[in-house]
Amino acid sequence: MKTYGVIMAGGGGTRFWPLSRKARPKQFLELSGKDTMVMDTARRLEQIAKAEDIFIVTSMAHREMTVELTKGVVSKDHVLGEPAARNTAACIGYAAMEILKKYGDGVMVVAPSDHFIRDEAEYKRVFERAVELAEETDSLITVGIKPTYPCTGYGYIKNKESAGKDYREVVEFVEKPDPETAHEYLVSGEYAWNSGMFVWKASVILKRFEELLPDIYECLVKIGDAMGTDDEAGVIDEIYPVIPKISIDYGIMERADRVLMLEGDFGWNDVGSFEALEEVYGTDENGNVIMSEAHTIDTTDCILYGTDRNRLIATLGVDDLVIAVTDDVVLVADKNRSQDVKLFVEGLSNTDKDKYL
Amino acid sequence: MKTYGVIMAGGGGTRFWPLSRKARPKQFLELSGKDTMVMDTARRLEQIAKAEDIFIVTSMAHREMTVELTKGVVSKDHVLGEPAARNTAACIGYAAMEILKKYGDGVMVVAPSDHFIRDEAEYKRVFERAVELAEETDSLITVGIKPTYPCTGYGYIKNKESAGKDYREVVEFVEKPDPETAHEYLVSGEYAWNSGMFVWKASVILKRFEELLPDIYECLVKIGDAMGTDDEAGVIDEIYPVIPKISIDYGIMERADRVLMLEGDFGWNDVGSFEALEEVYGTDENGNVIMSEAHTIDTTDCILYGTDRNRLIATLGVDDLVIAVTDDVVLVADKNRSQDVKLFVEGLSNTDKDKYL
Repeated sequence: MKTYGVIMAGGGGTRFWPLSRKARPKQFLELSGKDTMVMDTARRLEQIAKAEDIFIVTSMAHREMTVELTKGVVSKDHVLGEPAARNTAACIGYAAMEILKKYGDGVMVVAPSDHFIRDEAEYKRVFERAVELAEETDSLITVGIKPTYPCTGYGYIKNKESAGKDYREVVEFVEKPDPETAHEYLVSGEYAWNSGMFVWKASVILKRFEELLPDIYECLVKIGDAMGTDDEAGVIDEIYPVIPKISIDYGIMERADRVLMLEGDFGWNDVGSFEALEEVYGTDENGNVIMSEAHTIDTTDCILYGTDRNRLIATLGVDDLVIAVTDDVVLVADKNRSQDVKLFVEGLSNTDKDKYL
Repeated sequence: MKTYGVIMAGGGGTRFWPLSRKARPKQFLELSGKDTMVMDTARRLEQIAKAEDIFIVTSMAHREMTVELTKGVVSKDHVLGEPAARNTAACIGYAAMEILKKYGDGVMVVAPSDHFIRDEAEYKRVFERAVELAEETDSLITVGIKPTYPCTGYGYIKNKESAGKDYREVVEFVEKPDPETAHEYLVSGEYAWNSGMFVWKASVILKRFEELLPDIYECLVKIGDAMGTDDEAGVIDEIYPVIPKISIDYGIMERADRVLMLEGDFGWNDVGSFEALEEVYGTDENGNVIMSEAHTIDTTDCILYGTDRNRLIATLGVDDLVIAVTDDVVLVADKNRSQDVKLFVEGLSNTDKDKYL
């Protein structure tokens, strides 16, 4: 059976502003050091699926850029454009229908386009096992990340052993916890971080749509029926924007029975805010992450990121700052508030400064 | 008798880096809001001397720029270029000789090119009186600034009443004090800040050079003898670089007898570091000075200065910072260490980053 890669690249995250912009969301940035995050993701999936079987779903507005940025790995006609953002259930359903109708059933490895993986060999090992399991069992599989600290920024998956098996059974998906609860989760050993990475057959997930999200399934069938006809683009343009907005977690994962989990321990990070760059890059002897031409004096625990290597960031006597510099914006923020960077995006929207978004 | 204005614009200050650069020292910046500091100074002197009698002494490297920046007030041939920086005694002696030889004796009002004056009417009143006094008494006159707080960043002038007179007699010039001494100076009422502004006849100051700085005087005479001849430029190029380096304060003011002082109370500030911008511009309700396109969230007591109004400075949860942004450098410094900004200039000199100086 074929293995497909499906990269979800429709996000428009605001927590890396001003690096991420309306025209260039986070997944199109070189945040993890090698290439753009979406290209790094494609290369990672290429270890599990053939390049010709990798798909990317992104917004129509970013489709052309995505084709350009993943050239050499992903074929142009495998970059699917969404006419509107309708959350992850729609995105995954669309990809499943595209695969089933045009290329034949197979196991889909679904991955967000903007995560970081340190240990790619271990990642490959876990996902190859997930693909096997999906093929053998017709289950929905997710990869839960072994927690390394009581993180309050991720959702968790409660899970239990499956006697004599290498996989675990999902008990429930739970929301981001408060610090105390996060600590309990960590100590209990019964919780994993919800990474948003899934493995299943296209035919199996579409059956779950039919059972659990019939409204969405109906839309997907209309789109599927038009696939390969002259009406395809028109039907997608018409139907897609009215697909109910719901995440795959809420819509299917939390409600389906028999969801299996493999535990992953491969240095995963969702790169959810500037602070995450400390884990992605590591810090120098002063606790700084320096991704810029820089000259620092008495500077500790700061993150310096400049998009132009011909621009110098100079710091003196400062600690715990995020300094992010683009051609037209300089951000200086308390690192402990780097989650709040999205406030700028809210604050500048619909003002005379919205050109900076 | 004619009144001349003499602006000393030879400085190469480092405490406003990265705004001030080798190619564009502080006096050529628009730090006080209206125009460049040197042009503001010229306009201020124009209230006391005729525009056609205003001179500027600057380094040869900045002569052309100075002519350009003060066009409309200062005539091109009144902008004197120093082939080398030889401190203020040389600069003032050269201007005095130029005036005496080419334009005839008169009272020189000598002013640094990079200070800020809030109350220009009071400034005019004090200097007009100083000009009168210089003409009547053949004295060396300085304007001491009435201290408003126990500043440790300025030198002081100890002075005493002159019975029945509006001027005071200088007792001695003293160095920058420690905080305790500065407090004593303030309380005593016998000390004024040394502003580096002087008034005297060209002939009188040259006589003091002859008495107190004969080596320099000898150089000045050689230059004076060549003035108006074909050799002028050549002699200046040859002699000027070997004039002994000494400040007018050390060389003459502290050693001459009968130095008079007028007290000035006109909102003077030498704009010696970024912190001074708080006094020059005043702060907003959050204690910030914002000289840039900016969007601030939970930001207090910061100084934001951007040279390009199309570049946004965005701050979040920060206090007491100086953020100065040019096309190629972003400085983020603890405001309480803004005097130390010169460390960058030292640190970057003779490195592969000296293009940022």
